[in-house]
Amino acid sequence: MKDRALNTEILSVGTELLLGHVTNTDARDVSEMLSKIGINVRYHTVVGDNPQRLRECVEIAKRRADVIITTGGLGPTCDDLTKQILAEAFGLPLVEDRAEREGLYDYIKYSKSFTPNNYAQALIPEGATVFHNNCGTAPGCAFQKDGRTVVMLPGPPKECRAMFAESAIPYLKALSGGEIVSHSLRIFGIGESAVDQMFRDEMDKMSNPSMAPYAKECDCLLQVTAKADTAAEAEAMIRPVMERAAARLGEYVYGVDVECIEEAVFALMEHNGLRFAAAESCTGGELAKRFTDIPGASAHFCGGVVTYTNEMKSRLLGIAPALIAEKGAVSYEVAYEMAARVRELSGADLGVGVTGLAGPDGDGVHEVGTVFVSLAAPEGVWVRALRLGAHRTRSFIRRMAGNHVYDMMRRYMSGLNVLEPGAEKTI
Amino acid sequence: MKDRALNTEILSVGTELLLGHVTNTDARDVSEMLSKIGINVRYHTVVGDNPQRLRECVEIAKRRADVIITTGGLGPTCDDLTKQILAEAFGLPLVEDRAEREGLYDYIKYSKSFTPNNYAQALIPEGATVFHNNCGTAPGCAFQKDGRTVVMLPGPPKECRAMFAESAIPYLKALSGGEIVSHSLRIFGIGESAVDQMFRDEMDKMSNPSMAPYAKECDCLLQVTAKADTAAEAEAMIRPVMERAAARLGEYVYGVDVECIEEAVFALMEHNGLRFAAAESCTGGELAKRFTDIPGASAHFCGGVVTYTNEMKSRLLGIAPALIAEKGAVSYEVAYEMAARVRELSGADLGVGVTGLAGPDGDGVHEVGTVFVSLAAPEGVWVRALRLGAHRTRSFIRRMAGNHVYDMMRRYMSGLNVLEPGAEKTI
Repeated sequence: MKDRALNTEILSVGTELLLGHVTNTDARDVSEMLSKIGINVRYHTVVGDNPQRLRECVEIAKRRADVIITTGGLGPTCDDLTKQILAEAFGLPLVEDRAEREGLYDYIKYSKSFTPNNYAQALIPEGATVFHNNCGTAPGCAFQKDGRTVVMLPGPPKECRAMFAESAIPYLKALSGGEIVSHSLRIFGIGESAVDQMFRDEMDKMSNPSMAPYAKECDCLLQVTAKADTAAEAEAMIRPVMERAAARLGEYVYGVDVECIEEAVFALMEHNGLRFAAAESCTGGELAKRFTDIPGASAHFCGGVVTYTNEMKSRLLGIAPALIAEKGAVSYEVAYEMAARVRELSGADLGVGVTGLAGPDGDGVHEVGTVFVSLAAPEGVWVRALRLGAHRTRSFIRRMAGNHVYDMMRRYMSGLNVLEPGAEKTI
Repeated sequence: MKDRALNTEILSVGTELLLGHVTNTDARDVSEMLSKIGINVRYHTVVGDNPQRLRECVEIAKRRADVIITTGGLGPTCDDLTKQILAEAFGLPLVEDRAEREGLYDYIKYSKSFTPNNYAQALIPEGATVFHNNCGTAPGCAFQKDGRTVVMLPGPPKECRAMFAESAIPYLKALSGGEIVSHSLRIFGIGESAVDQMFRDEMDKMSNPSMAPYAKECDCLLQVTAKADTAAEAEAMIRPVMERAAARLGEYVYGVDVECIEEAVFALMEHNGLRFAAAESCTGGELAKRFTDIPGASAHFCGGVVTYTNEMKSRLLGIAPALIAEKGAVSYEVAYEMAARVRELSGADLGVGVTGLAGPDGDGVHEVGTVFVSLAAPEGVWVRALRLGAHRTRSFIRRMAGNHVYDMMRRYMSGLNVLEPGAEKTI
């Protein structure tokens, strides 16, 4: 097996990152794509729009990385200086790219916010490969010099992602020897710590393939990675490891190589030809939002209601005010009715409901984090009672409540026990 | 004025960040809080769970920063090594903190996923101030040595944020000389580039206070920052600059020091004692989700419907199938009806509607990015027609459509022209 490990540093430029105005999603996106083509990311660095400090960071990156990928600082505002500093650090002059300059003439016609300083974007380090920006105006570029590879990408996340996928990956792939392949089991119902404990002995004995658990906000994953000369060999090394791990984790595995549980639910709905509708209280539309983030959601999601007040639960779903008064809006009974009625109202195959206390304020009856989630199907209605933790944030409780709804749906569609709540405590 | 600028580096430890499994929100959160207490963040670094590389990063940080803040690597899994390496780099032994160890005994009773390796969390560099973790098990700590200040925080975002606010800020505040104050005008309707152009001459002449525009995903902001001996002096320096800028930007300013446009809308609804309801198609619940992210939303949001299919538009809102057939679901008329009918159905003061094409697939009639947003009030119904760009992502189109709805609401409540769509093009 060839082994030309290409150590990479992602250098993001922008004072707005250091001020905390924006999150560095570019470094995440680029890292994720790099790991899939077998290029190791060793460092992320963020530095502000300051020539001297950027220069020093470039010097450090030149010493410790084979590939330097910059994000940001290619745009039209005056503090954008990435190209200047990188060109200077590698002793290259900046020259105007005619095609890019002409592209800018075209763009100006369609944009109200285009200003003369935008033309500096057409300057490129001499000899660099120009990456045209299909989603914005600032082009990126790449060059090799002094045994280093430099790739420069624009900062806006959509532009950065698109340019990386379309132009930088083909450029970089040619440099990488061997293939690295990773697959992940996505897990809901037991935590990273428990998964780590469960596989610790096995993991300690492994090197290639290797295996490691990672925590996500509301679930976790177990990743298996192998390096080989070809992708097919790496796949063959991974397969038996994945199969054994999946068998041990059993029904807690909701998917392989999926991004989130709603994606697994989408695939199961596709497979079973089903549609659902949602009645949400404390999640306030987030459950629907998450499913409709997936392109093509309309084939499996009819819609639903956000009944944020008691009055709306009666007006939109026809739940008897007396039931709400007697049992409370946060109750087994109201959750039951929400799923059953939204299913009826919509004509969907499945109906789901969520009612609970996302906090920060309680209702004087239940503690924050008390949530009832429900699933109505032709066979009946299930309600899962959750205590997600009074110390948890509103956003965690809302997201975790949604995960439980999706977990019930995937368990129903997979023929598993719908109510098994994993490691969560029930009321 | 005292000037002991404390240059800070945030060093985040975790291979999951380099693999792109998670985004480095900790660095963002800590940066945002630091900027408010006048501590300059100069660098963010991310390094994996590798002792040698972490050691090298600590050496670099020691050279270029006065304050080193680490996030991550304090937890129970075996690759957590931040405390070890930092203690070693500053020549401090690790000693067990009895209070923390006893706290762990308590915790174990309540947690299914607690495992023996969790006890290593009670080890602390000798002499360090221990920061108890009120949201998890791993304590943080801080110490000063060799002219440097080191603060170690846990990786999980909620724990990191809470510990930083509760323990690290008081610790750091004592070190910082002088006060830095920042305020921001949040702007919707014109882009960062145009704002930069508008204020460029003025900004070039300023140093303290200083002014700079920053782009956010779907809007932008203009930030004014001043340093002085006291916060009151800094405030007094900022005030006239903010006032002049706000007057020039006029109705495009939706708020001062707010996080997002829905927060500005929330404040206006609070001020006017109003409630609204939403009928969403292409945003699929995101509009409601965004408003209900705000604690206390239920006072101003009744709820709404997500009518993702044509059938649901008729079933839930009673829109005539003939109208949808004749005009199309993505039309001025259907948007008009959605806002009007959800207002009626809910009894709310205002009703809003969104229907459009978020992509990636079109409908054969309109291009992706075509969206109609509507607002129904006692005075009538307004519909804004948008072309948000066929090259834009689904998530951008959904978010921007939501911003336009909120922009109409804030313009209505502020007595401005509801339909002025800023720099966006209308159909």
